[in-house]
Amino acid sequence: MNTKSTINYQEIAKELNGIETTTNSDRLTKLSLDYYHFSPILTEQLQNKRGELAAFPTTEAEVLKIALICVKYKIPLTVRGAGTGNYGQCIPLEGGIILDTSKMNQIQWLKPGIACVQPGVKMAAFDKQARKIGWELRIAPSTYRTATIGGFIGGGSVGMGSVNYGQISDRGNLRRVRLVTLEETPQVLELEGDRVQKVLHAYGTTGIITELEIPLAPAYPWQEIIVTFDDFMTAASFGQALSDSHGIVKKLVSIHASPIPSYFPALKNYIPQGKHCALLMVSEYDITPFQDLVQEYQGEITYSKTAAEAAKGTSLLEFTWNHTTLHARSVDNKLTYLQTFYFTLERLEKLYQQRGDEIMIHLEFLRAGDKAVPAGLQLIRFTTGERLNEIIRDRESQGAFIANPHVYTIEDGGNKQVDPQKVAFKQQVDPYGLLNPGKMRGFRE
Amino acid sequence: MNTKSTINYQEIAKELNGIETTTNSDRLTKLSLDYYHFSPILTEQLQNKRGELAAFPTTEAEVLKIALICVKYKIPLTVRGAGTGNYGQCIPLEGGIILDTSKMNQIQWLKPGIACVQPGVKMAAFDKQARKIGWELRIAPSTYRTATIGGFIGGGSVGMGSVNYGQISDRGNLRRVRLVTLEETPQVLELEGDRVQKVLHAYGTTGIITELEIPLAPAYPWQEIIVTFDDFMTAASFGQALSDSHGIVKKLVSIHASPIPSYFPALKNYIPQGKHCALLMVSEYDITPFQDLVQEYQGEITYSKTAAEAAKGTSLLEFTWNHTTLHARSVDNKLTYLQTFYFTLERLEKLYQQRGDEIMIHLEFLRAGDKAVPAGLQLIRFTTGERLNEIIRDRESQGAFIANPHVYTIEDGGNKQVDPQKVAFKQQVDPYGLLNPGKMRGFRE
Repeated sequence: MNTKSTINYQEIAKELNGIETTTNSDRLTKLSLDYYHFSPILTEQLQNKRGELAAFPTTEAEVLKIALICVKYKIPLTVRGAGTGNYGQCIPLEGGIILDTSKMNQIQWLKPGIACVQPGVKMAAFDKQARKIGWELRIAPSTYRTATIGGFIGGGSVGMGSVNYGQISDRGNLRRVRLVTLEETPQVLELEGDRVQKVLHAYGTTGIITELEIPLAPAYPWQEIIVTFDDFMTAASFGQALSDSHGIVKKLVSIHASPIPSYFPALKNYIPQGKHCALLMVSEYDITPFQDLVQEYQGEITYSKTAAEAAKGTSLLEFTWNHTTLHARSVDNKLTYLQTFYFTLERLEKLYQQRGDEIMIHLEFLRAGDKAVPAGLQLIRFTTGERLNEIIRDRESQGAFIANPHVYTIEDGGNKQVDPQKVAFKQQVDPYGLLNPGKMRGFRE
Repeated sequence: MNTKSTINYQEIAKELNGIETTTNSDRLTKLSLDYYHFSPILTEQLQNKRGELAAFPTTEAEVLKIALICVKYKIPLTVRGAGTGNYGQCIPLEGGIILDTSKMNQIQWLKPGIACVQPGVKMAAFDKQARKIGWELRIAPSTYRTATIGGFIGGGSVGMGSVNYGQISDRGNLRRVRLVTLEETPQVLELEGDRVQKVLHAYGTTGIITELEIPLAPAYPWQEIIVTFDDFMTAASFGQALSDSHGIVKKLVSIHASPIPSYFPALKNYIPQGKHCALLMVSEYDITPFQDLVQEYQGEITYSKTAAEAAKGTSLLEFTWNHTTLHARSVDNKLTYLQTFYFTLERLEKLYQQRGDEIMIHLEFLRAGDKAVPAGLQLIRFTTGERLNEIIRDRESQGAFIANPHVYTIEDGGNKQVDPQKVAFKQQVDPYGLLNPGKMRGFRE
């Protein structure tokens, strides 16, 4: 692989004629960031990493042209969408070219149940079109308004809708990808069925996605609701019960322990101090049985907006998942987080009782295996990396699963192990190791 | 309560002027039957039970008029839909008037997500209308083509769609009922929310349903598929995996152990002798990931019809649930059945190994509590009632749940216990005990 000392990026830009590029330092700095600053550890490791040229292709042909040049000069190539990730997924560790997909933002076709898109389509913008024919994305992150579909497939995992459809890696949640390889002669490949796993959550190390076929969910009018509770475990049990209520259609079940709601000034009129709350999206058609469930758990509905009303303001989605961390850090930037699967309410209760002043828990329920389970991005008052690892080890020893968001390789985060299929596929499509170098640990080993 | 000796039903018919009635003996015989003949025990107990006059109201006002007369003369009143039940739900144990709802067959209104119907609307006919706006019933039995919605709510429990929505008694699956009471002065009541439980699966003992508000499911084009397997437990595990595949939308997951498929001559070209099979309804949009799942379990797809093709012939639905028993009994009328919840594959395997020549197992997966579980209507070679009860006790001792279909009271079948709420409600709305007398054991006790 070449380093910048031997490459003249002005000349590369000329060779890429016809494709929009930039070598502007300020723009490159912005394009070399995601939201890794939620992690003090990643911040230290990643803050000086910079790409040297960014390209903004609009077609697959332009992507092929960029791929050719990268192979010709052995230049590292890192693909990014909107950069809303938190694990440094799209940070160019070795510099080189940044391929920004945001101009590849066409919906190729849209049918009941399924759509074909370019990777740079923003998720909320897609849904605006899809809802016209009664459909929407199955799963989307809290960064829904700005995140791209390609970025979510390449670097994401779960989000709103996961209480119904599980993770993006669950069979069926991605149907087909087209991608450009970085072989000696770059080519276009298509993967269908289970083979799409090779690019899912691979951080763009296994090819440049140029097209995606994604299944859709029926679009409901989603009522946005806040319910408050006196007791956290009652709120958590309510979240489990709602997730398990087959007769009540929902899309988001997020439970926040006090004092987390105090980090949401925009919601302060709806969540009295000291209360725990549920932030929810429930089908408008199912509000009456939902109210019976709230009553059973002695919750109080303090906020309820129809889908039409909710569309005018900020969605409750933007207080859940890792947006919780964003709001908390805007008050106290010493806070960081750990992505945690509790699996059962019993384990959750035990860990909740052990939280001390160091940890604040919120939950997002999602389907994993045969059940809907409590998971969440617990807020942590950061002191040292050692202490953070101690917390991780302690939680793991009690049976929780931690997807560590303070590491930037695929394997050391959620996957926990080298995936031989992904590594073998990378050896085929990226023999020079140019794609997002340093992110797939298994490839270098 | 009056018996027929003191009532002149010709006079009653005159008092009901304006309402269609019959005292024709052949018609009354037919209207005093359901499919209880699947049970040799119920056949013996119920075969001589006859109503003495049948009325066919078309409006709630006519139902009120019938109710008034029943109270005036203390005449037993038994409500029936299409009579597709198997537990004698609508058999008039004490004679009297049969109220047939089949002429109350109007859809009052139909909106996205929810509809309001009279009780006598046939389920398939309803869906034909609902699908025009993209919706359909959440849950429907294998008798879908002929069964009425009111009959299913009053006497049913689960069916196709239960793999997604659970049981009709799960909160949210029925929204509102209007009913006519048999108080001294009959009146119209409305029950909403959790209060609808008082009429759910109450066999019409707690009021005469005149209107129902029911939630709907998004209508998919359902592909009908047969998959064959060499090994039954592999087929069962496949059924569990399909039920748990969040990324594959389905509506029916029914697994049949050999030799049950030999009772389906219409399907003999698709299920080789000795093979076990899955009869399935899967969203057409999700066929590619479905095929990957079939491959993982080494199944073979031998039959696959699009929704449009399937609509032209007999639906695979009509080989599942208790239609399995119907087909098996048309070959061997010594066969009967037991409704069984296995809950786990481990328990299923143990009971499958103990089946001997006496028992044949098929499964229908459904959501119960926090999971999709294997349940089914195992076929039994009937010898004696004692032996049948011995099988029940043995299965129960191994942790299975049996909803005994060889008893005709609400409590002795699936519910297992007196529901004080239902009994108290009956005391209010039917103080003379005229509604379907003998079916609610808790009321007489």
